[in-house]
Amino acid sequence: MDFVSGVKKPDTRELPELLSGELLGQTVKVNGAVHTIRHMGEIAFIVLRKRDGLLQCVYEEGKAGFDQKDIREAATVEVEGILESEERAPGGVEIRLKGIRILSEPSAPLPLPIAKWKLNTSLEAKLNMRSVSLRNVRERAKFKLQEGIVRAFRDFLYGEGFTEIHTPKIGAKSAEGGANLFKLEYFHRPAVLQQSPQLYKQMMVGVFDRVFETAPVFRAEKHNTKRHLNEYTSLDFEMGYIDSFEDIMAMETGFLQHMVRLLQQDYAKELKMLNITLPKVDEIPAVRFDRAKELVAEKYNRKIRNPFDLEPEEESLIGQYFKEEYDADFVFVTHYPSKKRPFYAMDDLEDSRFTLSFDLLYQGLEVTTGGQRIHDYQMLVDKIAARGMEQEGLEQYLDTFRYGMPPHGGLGIGLERLTMKLVGEDNVREATLYPRDLSRLEP
Amino acid sequence: MDFVSGVKKPDTRELPELLSGELLGQTVKVNGAVHTIRHMGEIAFIVLRKRDGLLQCVYEEGKAGFDQKDIREAATVEVEGILESEERAPGGVEIRLKGIRILSEPSAPLPLPIAKWKLNTSLEAKLNMRSVSLRNVRERAKFKLQEGIVRAFRDFLYGEGFTEIHTPKIGAKSAEGGANLFKLEYFHRPAVLQQSPQLYKQMMVGVFDRVFETAPVFRAEKHNTKRHLNEYTSLDFEMGYIDSFEDIMAMETGFLQHMVRLLQQDYAKELKMLNITLPKVDEIPAVRFDRAKELVAEKYNRKIRNPFDLEPEEESLIGQYFKEEYDADFVFVTHYPSKKRPFYAMDDLEDSRFTLSFDLLYQGLEVTTGGQRIHDYQMLVDKIAARGMEQEGLEQYLDTFRYGMPPHGGLGIGLERLTMKLVGEDNVREATLYPRDLSRLEP
Repeated sequence: MDFVSGVKKPDTRELPELLSGELLGQTVKVNGAVHTIRHMGEIAFIVLRKRDGLLQCVYEEGKAGFDQKDIREAATVEVEGILESEERAPGGVEIRLKGIRILSEPSAPLPLPIAKWKLNTSLEAKLNMRSVSLRNVRERAKFKLQEGIVRAFRDFLYGEGFTEIHTPKIGAKSAEGGANLFKLEYFHRPAVLQQSPQLYKQMMVGVFDRVFETAPVFRAEKHNTKRHLNEYTSLDFEMGYIDSFEDIMAMETGFLQHMVRLLQQDYAKELKMLNITLPKVDEIPAVRFDRAKELVAEKYNRKIRNPFDLEPEEESLIGQYFKEEYDADFVFVTHYPSKKRPFYAMDDLEDSRFTLSFDLLYQGLEVTTGGQRIHDYQMLVDKIAARGMEQEGLEQYLDTFRYGMPPHGGLGIGLERLTMKLVGEDNVREATLYPRDLSRLEP
Repeated sequence: MDFVSGVKKPDTRELPELLSGELLGQTVKVNGAVHTIRHMGEIAFIVLRKRDGLLQCVYEEGKAGFDQKDIREAATVEVEGILESEERAPGGVEIRLKGIRILSEPSAPLPLPIAKWKLNTSLEAKLNMRSVSLRNVRERAKFKLQEGIVRAFRDFLYGEGFTEIHTPKIGAKSAEGGANLFKLEYFHRPAVLQQSPQLYKQMMVGVFDRVFETAPVFRAEKHNTKRHLNEYTSLDFEMGYIDSFEDIMAMETGFLQHMVRLLQQDYAKELKMLNITLPKVDEIPAVRFDRAKELVAEKYNRKIRNPFDLEPEEESLIGQYFKEEYDADFVFVTHYPSKKRPFYAMDDLEDSRFTLSFDLLYQGLEVTTGGQRIHDYQMLVDKIAARGMEQEGLEQYLDTFRYGMPPHGGLGIGLERLTMKLVGEDNVREATLYPRDLSRLEP
């Protein structure tokens, strides 16, 4: 009988080992994709693309044991050679080739110049050739940073006593209701895709006190803008035993601080490659919704057209105001009007036209919506009635409150928007592997 | 201007601090849900449920500063009192109450006896009252362990150089094709929910070499069994530069070993509470599909009815065989018939009726499907043609191979099935927060 006993150390080397200095002068084996080849007569420079970066290999005729014509760009190979230090090579090392083994060959030349430092290709073309365009190391670096954001979110929340949950995306009813729902047939019954894990995460606060989820959400919004997606990854948390909705903002600030630390520590290579300056997160200003509108109206000479709504341009100007006045990348805008928030939002007891809620703006773009929720059964039932909503389909949700729930609140962060701002892009599709929008459903 | 500067240490204490011994004899504040109250005349024992477990509080008339009648089960409270050691209390400590603040009150008595050690309630009733039944500490412990499994998966793969990705769940076409697709309308176009992130993770192997995703998948299967769900969480990875599909099995074994270590280290409380013995994962037997059928036929006196299919009963007997003969909880069954595997599976060059693939059985239940994939463009195009499939909708997927791809493979693990076996349940719904099956779409 054969047995599998776990991961064995391979005989090929990865970049961190090669760059450590310990293998200099030794013969090493390395695999990778042929990123570029520069033929210079009897010498050729073959650059391999590996998951951690690029590696230069030097071919010298007669010494390499093969013909340089045998290697093509986009082939994948395993090479053998001597590791030498070389200041002009990426990472300061190169391999003097002694042998090569071709693992696979492409069937056609690359359609995009992925080896260029900046891939000057339209977003449309990049998305149409996603699995090729992301082979450009700067393009793929954006998604490594996105990984770092999600890791930071989870690691931070584990440390704060949160439990990770997995809630269903198909349901009979959705959290916010309204028209923005994708509908499907579920074994001859009408169903929808969840816009948010809101009701589920609230129900789980009564079980675990603090919960989070990182999962897709679906919104059938007909917006065709640079900041809207019809499917995106939502970083959600919900926490019980709060004193006020400020506890939620404090937790989010803690996450952002942890994110900045983790990115600096584990993703320095990508930050440098994309020339990113991380945002200031030591303290984040918080301003009331109505006050923010006034500040912007005063400073930029605008009229307040609707005191209960925030136009995208106003959001953008609030971002500008706090950058100019406080050098702040982020600003919490608090106390959103009750009309603009869902039924479960806790109204401000001091002025019920407003809620104990907030948005977080990042350079003028909403990246988070959060706040305190109603935890009292009767208050929730009354608000549902006052809005003319039906209790049907909300029975289990309401029962959760009937049988006792602590004061609680939470938030949802749009991962792609946060990534987009962090990497300095102005279209959320740049920070989405395979965006779904009004026109894009493939691949 | 107000500023938010991160998480502040609260003035209430959590269980780990209370159990550390450092606060004995001191006055502490603690919040929690009233799990049970036992009135004994002038004394009452009030047990609080907190995220880390239970905490006993002692009420003594005249000393507590309030009337014991003011507290009801399922209320949430903040109490103040002196922490004392008490051998008979859970965790060996209790709080002698000096004061209480009611944070919230229930509107009705609890419908389930959640404070009982074993909640002897039908699965149906538990699912119908999920947000209440999980307040039972043994019920919720299953989902803490589920968290541990997912953490272990991610942590292990980060350490092995994998990149986390987020792929779309709505698409024009799905990986495996076939009839088991949920269909929806996407802005007047037909669309489906993804059965698997298969095609996306393969495309991303050409970018990141190694990728993983932990996300929901959707299968419109009309099975109504104890092991099927129509929506579940799939733990997927895909890795390039493999020598054979055995590298995938080695990586999975490494994950399982890491999982066992993490659960022992960080989830010992839950393992003890559920009386769980962790499975043996130091070495996992691997047996060919055809050989496994023979072994079971010989030992248990069965006829092999179809040499190219594995019946659920055979799976179960393979589990039994390897438990009896090798004391093995897990077994890899390799070389599945080509007919039973999707188009992207790599056929065995030595006998193309079989594939370089495997399932992992856990006590006779399939918890993983994986294998090597075709990486050669022409081989893939030929197999698609031989199966009578269309290339339409697969253009970007196929282009990925046209422009070069390393030898690669991967797997998908059903999280709920793995959890179910680990916690010793026999219905996958016991390990799913909100199961979706033929009859269950709510809440």
